[in-house]
Amino acid sequence: MGDINGFGDPQPRKKWILNAFSMSSSGHVASGLWRHPRNRTHEYKNIQYWIDLAKILDGNFHGLFLADMLGVYDVYKVPGNLKPALPGAARFPISDPSLPIAAMAAVTKSLSSGITASTTYENPFLLARRYSTLDYLTNGRVAWNVVTSYLESAAKNLGLETQISHDERYAIAEEYMEVVYKLLESSWRTDAVVLDKEKREYTDPDRVRRINHKGKYFSVAGPRLIEPSRQRTPFIFQAGASKAGKSFAIKHAKAMFLPGMEVAAVKKQVQEIRAEAIQLGRDANSIKFIPGILVIVDETDDLAQKKYEEYLSYANLKGSLALFGGWTGTDLGKHGDDEDFKFSDNGVATELALGEPQAKVIKSSKTVADILERWIKEAGVDGFNLSYAVNLGDFEAIVKWLIPELKTRGVFWDPVRAEGMSMRENYLDDGLGPRLRADHPGSKFKWDN
Amino acid sequence: MGDINGFGDPQPRKKWILNAFSMSSSGHVASGLWRHPRNRTHEYKNIQYWIDLAKILDGNFHGLFLADMLGVYDVYKVPGNLKPALPGAARFPISDPSLPIAAMAAVTKSLSSGITASTTYENPFLLARRYSTLDYLTNGRVAWNVVTSYLESAAKNLGLETQISHDERYAIAEEYMEVVYKLLESSWRTDAVVLDKEKREYTDPDRVRRINHKGKYFSVAGPRLIEPSRQRTPFIFQAGASKAGKSFAIKHAKAMFLPGMEVAAVKKQVQEIRAEAIQLGRDANSIKFIPGILVIVDETDDLAQKKYEEYLSYANLKGSLALFGGWTGTDLGKHGDDEDFKFSDNGVATELALGEPQAKVIKSSKTVADILERWIKEAGVDGFNLSYAVNLGDFEAIVKWLIPELKTRGVFWDPVRAEGMSMRENYLDDGLGPRLRADHPGSKFKWDN
Repeated sequence: MGDINGFGDPQPRKKWILNAFSMSSSGHVASGLWRHPRNRTHEYKNIQYWIDLAKILDGNFHGLFLADMLGVYDVYKVPGNLKPALPGAARFPISDPSLPIAAMAAVTKSLSSGITASTTYENPFLLARRYSTLDYLTNGRVAWNVVTSYLESAAKNLGLETQISHDERYAIAEEYMEVVYKLLESSWRTDAVVLDKEKREYTDPDRVRRINHKGKYFSVAGPRLIEPSRQRTPFIFQAGASKAGKSFAIKHAKAMFLPGMEVAAVKKQVQEIRAEAIQLGRDANSIKFIPGILVIVDETDDLAQKKYEEYLSYANLKGSLALFGGWTGTDLGKHGDDEDFKFSDNGVATELALGEPQAKVIKSSKTVADILERWIKEAGVDGFNLSYAVNLGDFEAIVKWLIPELKTRGVFWDPVRAEGMSMRENYLDDGLGPRLRADHPGSKFKWDN
Repeated sequence: MGDINGFGDPQPRKKWILNAFSMSSSGHVASGLWRHPRNRTHEYKNIQYWIDLAKILDGNFHGLFLADMLGVYDVYKVPGNLKPALPGAARFPISDPSLPIAAMAAVTKSLSSGITASTTYENPFLLARRYSTLDYLTNGRVAWNVVTSYLESAAKNLGLETQISHDERYAIAEEYMEVVYKLLESSWRTDAVVLDKEKREYTDPDRVRRINHKGKYFSVAGPRLIEPSRQRTPFIFQAGASKAGKSFAIKHAKAMFLPGMEVAAVKKQVQEIRAEAIQLGRDANSIKFIPGILVIVDETDDLAQKKYEEYLSYANLKGSLALFGGWTGTDLGKHGDDEDFKFSDNGVATELALGEPQAKVIKSSKTVADILERWIKEAGVDGFNLSYAVNLGDFEAIVKWLIPELKTRGVFWDPVRAEGMSMRENYLDDGLGPRLRADHPGSKFKWDN
């Protein structure tokens, strides 16, 4: 158990990635918890909420991951029915997650942001400019969580009669990534902006070029409109659960968010993905595995349990069922409104009532840390994507109770050293700088390093 | 001349709209001025630049208007030639103007932001969510500058072989506006978010509805994803110079940016637009006319002139010709690189060397104010869209020299009263609240007020 007894290991221990998981929405995984008196997520639309959240996370968490959706979870009971999602605030209403980032960047030193955007519905030329701009505004502290968007309701918002099929969405996404890599890696040399006042040359015209991409789905002349940012291609997250999604993630992403309620199941996923990565010529150890988990921590196991029970009294099962319908396309309305779904895994309780199928750890800091250690060691994961039931409160509790324990064990990262470093450097911690790694498929588009 | 002699008018004078005009780009109207030692526009990509600019403008200017482009000015000398635009930084590189806004909103109290976005290239569902989010983050201090995008190079970046024709772009824009009004005005009742903890109801499901828009160009189910923001539809800017552009602006915009170098020509434009507005059933006096102007002001006329001459020594005529080619599609390369284009209008000098065809006033504060008074009185305009040659410097000079003079004359607005008010209220100053006015075509889509 590493440095748990204070004697120190012969070697420094691997540091854990601590990711905070949220949405720019009234509700996220724990439906109904907007009613909790300390919960502030209904302020998702106000700038001060984001500034306060950023200040709590900065210096503690590596990054904040913001999921997103472009439609409503409207599968529950009557397909196309808006109503069940509304009372429980099941990820609806929801705002644009890219827009508060600048205000958060201005008040933080090492916190990164992972922002979701869809390859099915956003134009790649506009998206490339957006992430380049964010990469500048955050000084290289931004990731793109690549999604292909799975909601039928999103398709109908974005101009389609029905969804593009899953496999075609991934085929589009493959070409989309190529366009984005060309724009971000290939159209400007790093030394293009010379600011040579003598020669009256802001940009050297020989160091910028078009990409002239013409493919099956996209036609983009380029060049990208903004000069080279620190990371160029943002750090890439992915959370693909389907076979095509996983293959896509293995190819393009360096941090994968895994669902999963049990150590053994996550371990199996990690092993399978590493094996597939090796087949694809990627460095298997360079992919970071980050399972989602809900940590409710307090001074003692008992106080944590009491807090959890108090949270449960606010949970909204209807909202959870609407969410579940959205994730799976399966209507659980037929199971009856008061049915619950329970699993357990050695101190880890999971209940649909507090959100999506993910592990929950409800204990004192030492017990939480022991359970998380088991995930790290047995499942081979690199850190945790920590969700909340009450926000800001559950993140504050992690900072107050859990992080001191992680420091004692020698697994807490060094956020002071991270100041001024890019997200890619902070998550991969391999000393290889802010740009795409050599084994990444976007690397072959680099005009220069 | 109003309160110019300090004796006061019998009635308070109409306050002028003071708009700062810029881009999230290395260069804007004054090509080559990036070389000036005090110019900071090459920092357009850094967050501190935007925070510093916002702090200078806040409490002085009504708003900051950010133009935008989705392509390069590549018409000069060889069509499709990137190179002339690059050395002079003629609006290239350029970043996404919507992304720094949150950081500026966090440090300002009354400053609004006008952000450009294109009805030709952006999806209306995503655009509606973006402006709603900005309306929240700024507390109602946001405008949308509606453009249809006129650059051939933009079309080729956004997936087209060539541009959509001018008239069809405006036909698309008309339907686009209808979709946006439906999303913003019609899909949520103002009282939809009830946060009723007893009833476990975040949103009342009977107060949110789909829009089910199916038109020639767009198909959008809705509802909008984010709850009702303060202004709902953002305040609308437009700067259409063509006949179709003007008709579009008269219908949809409440603030029009007019080009023009001479009082008489601008007066004619204002009169024609007012007449057309009346024909369309709009309140002609509710449209604000804001001509673009470059003010270079200093303690004396002589110091202002010296500053101007120093600026001219940095000007880049090639860059200006690239810009001119972009605006007009006309290649001025054949006129020779050292030719200049001069006009004059009673104290107002215009030279292509310092940017687009706009009036320039280079004088001490009293003389500048006298000339601006003439524009207000003779041309019937409501304020000014003040550009810069050196940024932040020229805005700082306006704050230091011109604004005290405007206060003396009783034409300076009340930015303290404006704190907490929406952009629409601050620009229209009609006491009619933050939402669309009754004569606006978007008003008929209101579900409620």
